[in-house]
Amino acid sequence: MNNFDTTIDKYIEKNIERYIDEVVRLCSQPSVSSTGEGVVDCANLVGELLSEHGIENTIFKTDGNPIIVGRVQGAGDKTLLFYNHYDVQPPEPLDLWLSPPFEPRVTDDAIYARGAKDDKGEFVSRLAAYDAIMDTYEELPCNLVFLLEGEEESGSPNIAKFVREHEDLLKANGAIWEEGKLEYGDQPSLLLGVRGVLYIELLVNKMKIDAHSGYAHILPNAAWHLNRALALLKDNEDNILIPGFYDNVRQPTNEELNAFDAWPDLETDLRTQFGIDKFINGVSGNQLRYAVFNPTCNIAGFGSGYQGPGTKTIIPAKAKAKVDFRLVPDQDPEDILRKLRKFLDVNGFEDVEINVLGKMWPFTTPMDDPLVRLTAEAGFEVYGKQTLIGPLSGGSSPAYAVGGFMDIPVVNPGIGYWDNRSHAPNEHIRIKDFINGTKQIARIISRF
Amino acid sequence: MNNFDTTIDKYIEKNIERYIDEVVRLCSQPSVSSTGEGVVDCANLVGELLSEHGIENTIFKTDGNPIIVGRVQGAGDKTLLFYNHYDVQPPEPLDLWLSPPFEPRVTDDAIYARGAKDDKGEFVSRLAAYDAIMDTYEELPCNLVFLLEGEEESGSPNIAKFVREHEDLLKANGAIWEEGKLEYGDQPSLLLGVRGVLYIELLVNKMKIDAHSGYAHILPNAAWHLNRALALLKDNEDNILIPGFYDNVRQPTNEELNAFDAWPDLETDLRTQFGIDKFINGVSGNQLRYAVFNPTCNIAGFGSGYQGPGTKTIIPAKAKAKVDFRLVPDQDPEDILRKLRKFLDVNGFEDVEINVLGKMWPFTTPMDDPLVRLTAEAGFEVYGKQTLIGPLSGGSSPAYAVGGFMDIPVVNPGIGYWDNRSHAPNEHIRIKDFINGTKQIARIISRF
Repeated sequence: MNNFDTTIDKYIEKNIERYIDEVVRLCSQPSVSSTGEGVVDCANLVGELLSEHGIENTIFKTDGNPIIVGRVQGAGDKTLLFYNHYDVQPPEPLDLWLSPPFEPRVTDDAIYARGAKDDKGEFVSRLAAYDAIMDTYEELPCNLVFLLEGEEESGSPNIAKFVREHEDLLKANGAIWEEGKLEYGDQPSLLLGVRGVLYIELLVNKMKIDAHSGYAHILPNAAWHLNRALALLKDNEDNILIPGFYDNVRQPTNEELNAFDAWPDLETDLRTQFGIDKFINGVSGNQLRYAVFNPTCNIAGFGSGYQGPGTKTIIPAKAKAKVDFRLVPDQDPEDILRKLRKFLDVNGFEDVEINVLGKMWPFTTPMDDPLVRLTAEAGFEVYGKQTLIGPLSGGSSPAYAVGGFMDIPVVNPGIGYWDNRSHAPNEHIRIKDFINGTKQIARIISRF
Repeated sequence: MNNFDTTIDKYIEKNIERYIDEVVRLCSQPSVSSTGEGVVDCANLVGELLSEHGIENTIFKTDGNPIIVGRVQGAGDKTLLFYNHYDVQPPEPLDLWLSPPFEPRVTDDAIYARGAKDDKGEFVSRLAAYDAIMDTYEELPCNLVFLLEGEEESGSPNIAKFVREHEDLLKANGAIWEEGKLEYGDQPSLLLGVRGVLYIELLVNKMKIDAHSGYAHILPNAAWHLNRALALLKDNEDNILIPGFYDNVRQPTNEELNAFDAWPDLETDLRTQFGIDKFINGVSGNQLRYAVFNPTCNIAGFGSGYQGPGTKTIIPAKAKAKVDFRLVPDQDPEDILRKLRKFLDVNGFEDVEINVLGKMWPFTTPMDDPLVRLTAEAGFEVYGKQTLIGPLSGGSSPAYAVGGFMDIPVVNPGIGYWDNRSHAPNEHIRIKDFINGTKQIARIISRF
């Protein structure tokens, strides 16, 4: 650790109360994108905060919630972008919170509030890291761009278009993603890719009204029709049968697969959490992590006809399923949608309506990217541990809109740990994680 | 029409106010078997009514609702049994009723109330027919047995056992079923058979809790598992694939099929009512009626995971389907259940739980039975029209427990028409149908 780093660390530790106050201030403002509660007020508050830190910013209108862009000029030519979001998940169920979700509670060790981790605390840690750099060096070694959206918890329907239309403003050489976390045992980690997603509803409408099941020999049954359409999509080994579905799947390299070998055991964890004795196709051990390179076709829900207690003898007129496809590099949700439509059509399911509820593209950053190395080195300095690096996560994010469109690496160091309860009651951050995460991000800025 | 018949008819017409009052009295007493509301009070009221008509009766306790048996000794050796039920369907949705369901409304032409048709009005018509015979002949030409149960609208789970245990008391040579109706155009009709039913729930439980769909490549999905289990059961032409399912199907004779040719067009009716353009396997015309001889496997409903608006990215832990099989002579629901269990087991679905919610056996009366001829002749005298005779209906009833166990013919003349709204808001009977139906039943008694 050099002298500059010592100064950075001291600045962060000394000023921690200010940043706790800022997290509290942001989290006191509800900003639930799924209901719209407080969203515009929160966008304005983000603008204020950026200004208070001396960061020029603009609040952009979109077809959805406002997007805020802040910029600071540095000495070097390179630009580092911070992607964050100011919207939060709904706080329900309220009765499980130990203190009200939008009245932050600060203890000696932690801050409890909806958004404390996801993603308001993360955003404040970027501000704190910036302050620490300015205090230590008196100027930025690189340019910074702050990009904050307000619809991440609702599928980010507007971010891609915004990035496309503001590429000049956002132009960067690398990005720090919205959040990161320590694995169990305070082990720093980086997941360098996300899967894409195509989220659809399949809708079947066979009759005007339900009929008595005494006519089941002649009247069409919407539930059966949907069942048959779904049955077409996968075989019993979970292979997806849509022709061309796997065409654009890029096979993982041995290096990518082997990267997972350093990661902790997933099997015991999942077995306990979900009470299962068998994984799909009997996969076990490290294979459970490797399998993230398999794209999926998941029924998130279905419903038709009578679902109450006892019996009702009807032929359902309507049926509905929610299906999400998780897509791996280099699959394209729009291509998959076209192939699905065609597959249903040629198999006699022209009448099954597809309603698209969301789509995202997969995105990965190469494991050997210099930004990955830089992030891991900074992590080692802060945590005294090697960073676990994984090539792909099971989830999805709009990282493609930043990393993909601008062709830049994206990494996700952050201030989380394995039990922040994001999206759940009693969401919180540990103050020590805020401090360490901020130290790591300040180091990345200083050496970018 | 002989003189006796004229006397019978006059008696019924002259005393109609009494029977309207009795229908009103019975329908004022709720008796909803699915909730239990008023059931025991109604059983007692049935006993009172029988006694008031001079019919000795006993109210039997069962594992469910009481069963009432009334008996009258006649001059001859033969015994005619009336099967009826005093329970009714739930009255909901209440806001669609033009007058309260349990406050009968009598107009010049009709009686509106829950149960007016199904089955309290029918029961009162049997009492009226008995009175007319006694008034005309001063003694019964045959013995009568009144059998009334209180769980018909809930699948009659106790009637079969009761009949088995009281065969001596119930011993009869023929039975009049609970209800019958005129087809469109006031055309009398008899449907001489009912299909059996096996109503089950299929339950899948794969995990303790729902999981994030980012794990869909490794965690088991209850909805997929259920979808696959259901997909096993039928091919795309609706053939049921359970081995041995069709083993005991008795093929209909040409005479049985051709009997349907006299029946009115079903196709236009169903097309309009349900807004469909195509029936299963493209069946049309008379074939739509013949197809009732095909047993069915119907999904009455299914549900799993998230069914609300928008997206939720989960792997459902649990899934459920309601399935009813309609069985034709001589299929046996217990045999079908065993075959289904085995079929699921050998195909890897041992973990799909089957919960039996109801079972009934098919039952038919031969078209050339003397009681059928007698009923049709009585119908011709009353309505001046030939009776449409059909060998099998699409629905199910506990007729097997009466006709099957005692090996006697069962016919269903009655007081209904094509638009009584049984099971629906504004259930009613037309008073002229009550009179005519009663005349027909009295004739059957007099000549049995």
